[in-house]
Amino acid sequence: MEQMFIYLVPVLGIIGLIVMAIKSAWVTKQETGDDNMVELAGHIAKGAMAFLKAEWKILGYFVVIAAIILGWSGTLVETSSPIIAISFIIGALLSAFAGYMGMNIATKANVRTTQAAKTSLKGALNVSFTGGSVMGLGVAGLAVLGMGSLFIVFYNVFVLSTGGDVNGAAMETALEVLAGFSLGAESIALFARVGGGIYTKAADVGADLVGKVEAGIPEDDVRNPATIADNVGDNVGDVAGMGADLFGSYVATILASMVLGREIVSADNFGGIAPVLLPLVIAGLGLMFSIVGTFFVKINKDTDSVQAALNKGNWISILLTVAASYPLIMYMLPDGDLILSRGGSIVFTKMGVFGAVVIGLIVGALMSMITEYYTSMGKRPVNSIIKQSSTGHATNIIGGLSVGMESTVAPILVLAAGIYTSFLAAGLYGVAIAAAGMMATTAMQLAIDAFGPIADNAGGIAEMSGLPKEVRERTDILDAVGNTTAASGKGFAIASAALTALALFAAYVGIAGIDSIDIYKADVLAGLFVGAMIPFIFSSLAIAAVGRAAMDMVNEVRRQFREIPGIMEYKAKPEYEKCVEISTKASLREMVAPGAIALLTPIIVGFAFGPEVLGGTLAGITVSGVLMGIFQNNAGGAWDNAKKSFEKGVMIDGVMQYKGSDAHKASVTGDTVGDPFKDTSGPSMNILIKLTSIVALVIAPHISEGDRHTRGDIEVEKIEIKKEIIIEDAKEIVSIEKIEIVK
Amino acid sequence: MEQMFIYLVPVLGIIGLIVMAIKSAWVTKQETGDDNMVELAGHIAKGAMAFLKAEWKILGYFVVIAAIILGWSGTLVETSSPIIAISFIIGALLSAFAGYMGMNIATKANVRTTQAAKTSLKGALNVSFTGGSVMGLGVAGLAVLGMGSLFIVFYNVFVLSTGGDVNGAAMETALEVLAGFSLGAESIALFARVGGGIYTKAADVGADLVGKVEAGIPEDDVRNPATIADNVGDNVGDVAGMGADLFGSYVATILASMVLGREIVSADNFGGIAPVLLPLVIAGLGLMFSIVGTFFVKINKDTDSVQAALNKGNWISILLTVAASYPLIMYMLPDGDLILSRGGSIVFTKMGVFGAVVIGLIVGALMSMITEYYTSMGKRPVNSIIKQSSTGHATNIIGGLSVGMESTVAPILVLAAGIYTSFLAAGLYGVAIAAAGMMATTAMQLAIDAFGPIADNAGGIAEMSGLPKEVRERTDILDAVGNTTAASGKGFAIASAALTALALFAAYVGIAGIDSIDIYKADVLAGLFVGAMIPFIFSSLAIAAVGRAAMDMVNEVRRQFREIPGIMEYKAKPEYEKCVEISTKASLREMVAPGAIALLTPIIVGFAFGPEVLGGTLAGITVSGVLMGIFQNNAGGAWDNAKKSFEKGVMIDGVMQYKGSDAHKASVTGDTVGDPFKDTSGPSMNILIKLTSIVALVIAPHISEGDRHTRGDIEVEKIEIKKEIIIEDAKEIVSIEKIEIVK
Repeated sequence: MEQMFIYLVPVLGIIGLIVMAIKSAWVTKQETGDDNMVELAGHIAKGAMAFLKAEWKILGYFVVIAAIILGWSGTLVETSSPIIAISFIIGALLSAFAGYMGMNIATKANVRTTQAAKTSLKGALNVSFTGGSVMGLGVAGLAVLGMGSLFIVFYNVFVLSTGGDVNGAAMETALEVLAGFSLGAESIALFARVGGGIYTKAADVGADLVGKVEAGIPEDDVRNPATIADNVGDNVGDVAGMGADLFGSYVATILASMVLGREIVSADNFGGIAPVLLPLVIAGLGLMFSIVGTFFVKINKDTDSVQAALNKGNWISILLTVAASYPLIMYMLPDGDLILSRGGSIVFTKMGVFGAVVIGLIVGALMSMITEYYTSMGKRPVNSIIKQSSTGHATNIIGGLSVGMESTVAPILVLAAGIYTSFLAAGLYGVAIAAAGMMATTAMQLAIDAFGPIADNAGGIAEMSGLPKEVRERTDILDAVGNTTAASGKGFAIASAALTALALFAAYVGIAGIDSIDIYKADVLAGLFVGAMIPFIFSSLAIAAVGRAAMDMVNEVRRQFREIPGIMEYKAKPEYEKCVEISTKASLREMVAPGAIALLTPIIVGFAFGPEVLGGTLAGITVSGVLMGIFQNNAGGAWDNAKKSFEKGVMIDGVMQYKGSDAHKASVTGDTVGDPFKDTSGPSMNILIKLTSIVALVIAPHISEGDRHTRGDIEVEKIEIKKEIIIEDAKEIVSIEKIEIVK
Repeated sequence: MEQMFIYLVPVLGIIGLIVMAIKSAWVTKQETGDDNMVELAGHIAKGAMAFLKAEWKILGYFVVIAAIILGWSGTLVETSSPIIAISFIIGALLSAFAGYMGMNIATKANVRTTQAAKTSLKGALNVSFTGGSVMGLGVAGLAVLGMGSLFIVFYNVFVLSTGGDVNGAAMETALEVLAGFSLGAESIALFARVGGGIYTKAADVGADLVGKVEAGIPEDDVRNPATIADNVGDNVGDVAGMGADLFGSYVATILASMVLGREIVSADNFGGIAPVLLPLVIAGLGLMFSIVGTFFVKINKDTDSVQAALNKGNWISILLTVAASYPLIMYMLPDGDLILSRGGSIVFTKMGVFGAVVIGLIVGALMSMITEYYTSMGKRPVNSIIKQSSTGHATNIIGGLSVGMESTVAPILVLAAGIYTSFLAAGLYGVAIAAAGMMATTAMQLAIDAFGPIADNAGGIAEMSGLPKEVRERTDILDAVGNTTAASGKGFAIASAALTALALFAAYVGIAGIDSIDIYKADVLAGLFVGAMIPFIFSSLAIAAVGRAAMDMVNEVRRQFREIPGIMEYKAKPEYEKCVEISTKASLREMVAPGAIALLTPIIVGFAFGPEVLGGTLAGITVSGVLMGIFQNNAGGAWDNAKKSFEKGVMIDGVMQYKGSDAHKASVTGDTVGDPFKDTSGPSMNILIKLTSIVALVIAPHISEGDRHTRGDIEVEKIEIKKEIIIEDAKEIVSIEKIEIVK
């Protein structure tokens, strides 16, 4: 029976996809509303697909070239295999397919949510959240199915069929090939996140600058040529971008745990691969309980709290996953000591592994809560920005920057504590498993995240179609909740990216054949400096790109108002597709430079300076990327809600201030600065830190120190680790950096 | 003769101070101008001294308490000594005295520069630059005299009188006690820099918000109650703050090189202490050649370039120092291999040491040039901000943030290359010597830096006294040059702080008795994360403090305009001293929290988690601090000059835009945001990274791993380092973390 357990994983993935298909069919058969609505939704869907197609065309070249290089390099080192190219292509295809599915359902669910909102909030929530669930289940289902199936194949090809060692080079090769899957997924995610982020903010800022400011028409007005592009942006950035991001994190986390699991000598009933298999099974379990959780997200009447319904579903998923992972771990892992023979040869038990799962879930929950505090209306941080808006644009900006910087403190302490305690619980494997625990309910997290932009779109369609006020009011309730979930989702995403990057980092160190990354060495320290600088230049490029692309959009909208007579009188239709095209082209053009930095930095540093310097660089990227990500996400979120607070009116020094006041205008400045922060460069930090780590992991066998080529044929008799040797007849206290004991 | 060489150092320091006294007397005997000017200058001098006194009162308590703790802790560990408390107090006193001297001469030179500017630019430059030279020579002279004398005393007490080993514990104790001097200097610098930075920007922003915006009176108008505080701020922040900062860097760099020098076994003619003595002598040499350089800073007629004169003096100092350090190093250091028995037992020659000096000077020069590029008018970065000002406040801010982030790339690559090459040249000693080489001409650097605020003040006095236009025009020329030197001075300061911190870091690792800082260990990595977060919270506190203090100032100025009739008609004098008091109180109040973070973080982390985790934290603070420093300094500088460009008029999309245009207003927003960036939090990063490193160095003996208490009595016969041992009869490739070989 134990030998069949490995086949359970893809089965769970398939179950997830079946449920997804059912939910998708349900959404599709909901009412779509009147012709006007259908036409507008059609524009949005067409624009979104146009972006995807254009993106795929470029990425197609990239994938082919990268696959050829990977396949060729797979022939160079004994532990590698050219099959990694196939694995890479499958990862890229599944990631692209996950993005497609998400966009497809989101562009169907949006108009159907608007239609349902004509009747009740309950119905609107049901449609929009089910749309989000399709995205969540699709992403997680594809990941579990893909990783599960490929692992079975590679395990058979490289380990079972060769009679290779499950703790040794054979399994190492299987997992290195599997790393290609993760690389494929993360590469697509990079371009989806960065391109999508530039797209959505270029359209948003461009539409606002000309529409609201120059032409004086409200948001989401049909007369604004950029309004369709703006709504497409929500799907391209917040749905497809976020989906690809979490697909990448999910896969990378599982992979990193598996790579570390290989190094655990485990006397289990699974042929010694229980520690490798465990993260896959936990992911599958989390997927099942996410499905359960989705059924609890509902309200009975319009006055019920939507946020409470989402929280209920989320916590049910999390708690069931924790509860189920306990017997699972007890069943799969052996009693007695587990020894991970790196990082100081940590000894731990299966209770420690369970502890790490719990730690991961706690870290994720805390990160979401802290993010919410820093970006919510009515709390101290946002209030301080509101107050500083009363003295002008500059003090509003200073306030937001100060809040954003301050907001790094608590998350970093939580992360540091999480790293420290999960390491105590189960060594480096514990850090990876904490990440895996946190990511287990990704399907549910993503459902909650994707529901927001669907509701946002639904509101846009209601506005553009001129529907009655109560429809917009209902979608606004959903949209407001969506803003909160978007903020806390970003906290979750950056935390998961940080833990994933650390797990990958640990996995990398093993495969690169180094024992330490000693920043006391000058070259490693130099690498740390260079690495820490990368998120700064990446952010600089991303926010500058939004600025440039927004200018293109502004010029096009101005041109249309000038050259197409009758737009303002509803007599002529604007050329929406021109604006869509501009956003598409600009985002694809602008995503190349940051993408190249993320992909090439680890390759250049690794080959030029070796694995230990690259380790320093990765640490620099991760630390600085996490800080810049939190800083930018939270500053942007806080500015956004400071501005929104003026819509209801805020009390500053005893005077009520509303929309249109000078203080409100200052708050709009902060919001505009915050847009690229929170939706372009901030979230891109996730991908940057994960992608650089995964690239490092893939190139690790090629840059490893020592003579790895000849190591394959040393047979393992016994692993012996002694931490300290005292040699009595020497003369003085000295330190020795490294000792190798060879058979 | 060689044994007398040690006495040369304090003699050089005394020569520097004598020249300073002569120059100071010359400045004092220049004409002061009319009664009105003297009265205004008197207000400024009084305000500046009032701040210093108030600051000293608070710092007095701090110094006494810290000295008691240091003295007590000095009795706990065998290699320490309670004498460190005395060393600390002397460092603090000299730092405070250096600040006093600088402020004293600056508040005399300002009005005398105004008076000289009535006649010629040549005279004005002469007075203001001589004032700056007094500051520079005073700071460097006191440092060389102080460090030189104390080293002689401690070397006699701990090494010569005990017959102790110059490479062993005896010299270690001498240098640890000397570290107290550096700690004292750097602690005072922290409060001077942060307090001064808050003071100057609170006054500046406060004066502008009410004066220019509400009352509609120009900058430096006598009717503005905050104008004296604003001019005091230039002295408090830019003179005293910068002076204390560089005094601290200078001392810390020399110290770190000496600590590393102790570990070099050197068969020289100086009783084996040549590597320890060398950095002191280089500093003394640099001081002498800075004196030579000051005589070349002069112009013959008003149309000569002031910048060229400054550059000439600077390069003469640098090149003479390089030229002289070659024979010095050849004379002092022995032929053959020098071996530094840490960091992989690097072997190098004295040519390598000379190479490191050259590398340091190149790094310093490049950093200044890069900073200048990113902050100068007419260059691409500032032009891009100007262009983005045309679409409003938000795009101006986005442009500045983008430029600031981008500007980290080149400096970090230069720094990384500097670290890497200086390490190749002479190991960790090379990194420290590079820093020492860079800092050798500190006297000249500081003279150039301090001349700027003196000229700025001179312009203020000219404006307030209603002097003829040509006087203000002459001081404006000096002021404009001062802005450029301020920017490039900041580049130099952050580079020197970075190299100093790394040298201290290396020294710390040795004293803490650890062999590596392995960020692959989970706890060290957690420490790295926490460390990297510190500059974010420090910056957040600093810029928020400026915001709060500026609000206090605004309220006071509004009150005076309201309650004192006749101010606007020149019939009544504003209560300048009230505004001075507000800035003083606010800055002293607000400097406590960031100061506490800088001092306590290393102490808490070190004692709670041990020396290796603290090493990770220090690396995090240094890397993130350098990045945040460069980012904030350059963004602020670029915004400032983008705004200034509108004064002459700029061409945007074919249209000339001037002061008062919407684009100009947007650029004012950026400038105001940039003020606390470039003058408060940005420069504070220097102190943060140095101070945390020096605190770590001082507590290192108390947190060191292993049983240091018993090491004192092991006699050194021979230091033997083997990097790799292959034991043939073992079973498998394993890694061993640490081996100690005991006699």
